[in-house]
Amino acid sequence: MPALDDDECRARAAAAPVARLATLRADGTPRLVPVTFVLVDGLVWIAVDDVKPKSGRRLARLADVDRDPRAALLVDHYDDDWDRLWWVRIDGAADVRDAADCAPAVDALVGKYPPYRRSRPPGPVLVLTPGAWAGWTASR
Amino acid sequence: MPALDDDECRARAAAAPVARLATLRADGTPRLVPVTFVLVDGLVWIAVDDVKPKSGRRLARLADVDRDPRAALLVDHYDDDWDRLWWVRIDGAADVRDAADCAPAVDALVGKYPPYRRSRPPGPVLVLTPGAWAGWTASR
Repeated sequence: MPALDDDECRARAAAAPVARLATLRADGTPRLVPVTFVLVDGLVWIAVDDVKPKSGRRLARLADVDRDPRAALLVDHYDDDWDRLWWVRIDGAADVRDAADCAPAVDALVGKYPPYRRSRPPGPVLVLTPGAWAGWTASR
Repeated sequence: MPALDDDECRARAAAAPVARLATLRADGTPRLVPVTFVLVDGLVWIAVDDVKPKSGRRLARLADVDRDPRAALLVDHYDDDWDRLWWVRIDGAADVRDAADCAPAVDALVGKYPPYRRSRPPGPVLVLTPGAWAGWTASR
């Protein structure tokens, strides 16, 4: 099972348009959601729309990491040719920051995703600090 | 935020070639991995290669569900046009079965994935029993 080293993991993850985030609910079950993201300064930055701000309800994934920061992110490539499969996983700790406090990362999100150019992410940013990278490829 | 009903969730999930599985490690952190799967009889069936059978080590995701069956599966569609985004999530309980005990599901895996025709999955099958379906689409 050919492993990817950390540099290869970072390069493949950075180029991917979408990843899947797992956070932990209050009962300890994993909550999965697809996310857009950028890698800046070795951290994963995910813009989230904080729905229903006036209702006082926070987006579930934000409440999850406030309660338990342990989270994981997966980037993978699927192909009908299974010799071309690969994946990269990050396990780490997440926290929530105001967009105003991480302008360079939000700039990077806007640069990576054209829809953000029309509408810069105003909401909080979920930041995943990698504790461990892991990666696998079916072939080199 | 337009939700998908359970029938729509099932149809979209069934047609997807790849999903992402989250299980729980012994320390409670989420373990993410991409998986191939079929939906048969309302359950999710995932063939896994039980690596290093002679070493006595089981594949980590199998050990995870033996210890704690709580698991989740995510299927999603990414598109540069964000009006076409959607995802489907299953939260449920997983268990491990011998391939010999679930031949119809293994047949379905072989039918869905050409590489399995050359090499029928011999190893155990991870079965996720959905407890709850959730789905979201950016537009109809």
